[in-house]
Amino acid sequence: MKKAVVLLSGGLDSATVLALARRDGFECHALSVNYGQRHQAELAAAKRVADALGARQHRVIALNLQTFGGSALTDHSLDVPTDGAANGIPITYVPARNTIFLSLALAWAEVLDADALFIGANAVDYSGYPDCRPEYLQAYQAMANLATRAAVEGKALVIHAPLVRMTKAQIVLAGIDAGVDFSLTVSCYQADEAGSACGACDACRIRRAGFAAARVDDPTRYLQHA
Amino acid sequence: MKKAVVLLSGGLDSATVLALARRDGFECHALSVNYGQRHQAELAAAKRVADALGARQHRVIALNLQTFGGSALTDHSLDVPTDGAANGIPITYVPARNTIFLSLALAWAEVLDADALFIGANAVDYSGYPDCRPEYLQAYQAMANLATRAAVEGKALVIHAPLVRMTKAQIVLAGIDAGVDFSLTVSCYQADEAGSACGACDACRIRRAGFAAARVDDPTRYLQHA
Repeated sequence: MKKAVVLLSGGLDSATVLALARRDGFECHALSVNYGQRHQAELAAAKRVADALGARQHRVIALNLQTFGGSALTDHSLDVPTDGAANGIPITYVPARNTIFLSLALAWAEVLDADALFIGANAVDYSGYPDCRPEYLQAYQAMANLATRAAVEGKALVIHAPLVRMTKAQIVLAGIDAGVDFSLTVSCYQADEAGSACGACDACRIRRAGFAAARVDDPTRYLQHA
Repeated sequence: MKKAVVLLSGGLDSATVLALARRDGFECHALSVNYGQRHQAELAAAKRVADALGARQHRVIALNLQTFGGSALTDHSLDVPTDGAANGIPITYVPARNTIFLSLALAWAEVLDADALFIGANAVDYSGYPDCRPEYLQAYQAMANLATRAAVEGKALVIHAPLVRMTKAQIVLAGIDAGVDFSLTVSCYQADEAGSACGACDACRIRRAGFAAARVDDPTRYLQHA
């Protein structure tokens, strides 16, 4: 059975990715990062999702990105925008986050002798994010295949980003088709400890619009209505 | 003045890299990683070196690589070899370490709007390490230049590995020429809290042999003599 490390944030996208990886027959080792984000609710969600979707194991690695700041998610003195305005890359962008997370996944993959990494990067809703583009992911895979013992010994590591060209509505439908219970997931940038979503941040707006476009009931508890 | 993030472990190589970056006119932001290594003496050494060589600032980011293990440096139930035997990649190799450290440096570079990263990777003494080879570093730079806002906006980031083809003796001489006080540095994998070196692990053996080959007095306090 092929092994994969699956980056799992606890949100809608990465839950779908885990379900797709399981359906494709991978033994899945789910990895979450406690990186100094604004709330712990998404890590609790990641654990629920890993259990529900049959991950072989789930680990949370601690990395304090508050050391660098530069994002409203890691510098808690900055406010998360809730006005829906979109001009360029938002303040919630975390510098080099996918590069760091993929590198942590790569390290664990090397220890596990895994065949693949899975990441929920998406170039549609996050079109301004450099590290969500297919060309970035291809360059990352090329680098990864020079970086490890296994790669040098001829074992190729494949980076799968199955959502990269999907709309949020397509992701919702793909997730439901693959058995995801989205009531377990948390997307909100500033969820409360119970996992209730603010309903106003960009993550909530994109999520809500995705369910609406997919014509699927949204199980999320939003504190503020649309 | 060009800005650089310099990965600084507190050892001989990275101290030399910082001195070379300073001599080349970079404003240097030194980064160390508290990754669950066996001792804190190298982080104390990194601070001394950053101060002595005029780094603009020095930060230590916490990342718990004990979550993955897979190396005698991060799994403290494994012994550090002290018998000098060398067969392939040693148990002290930390999976994907340079990839992770470069990714952390990249994140900070993005926050600082820096022009360059410096790393003490060396393909001679660590010839079995995949992530110390020039082709790996080239692939990393290609990926990094697709990964960040600055890169996408046309600002190239350069990864400098000035030691990559040097012998340890050449590094010792280059460091002295650039003003490094090697008595401040700690290379040993299992130094004690005062920074004294064991004298028997591979890092001590390589360091001692480097000073000997360079015909330079070695200021290191070794607990075990050659």
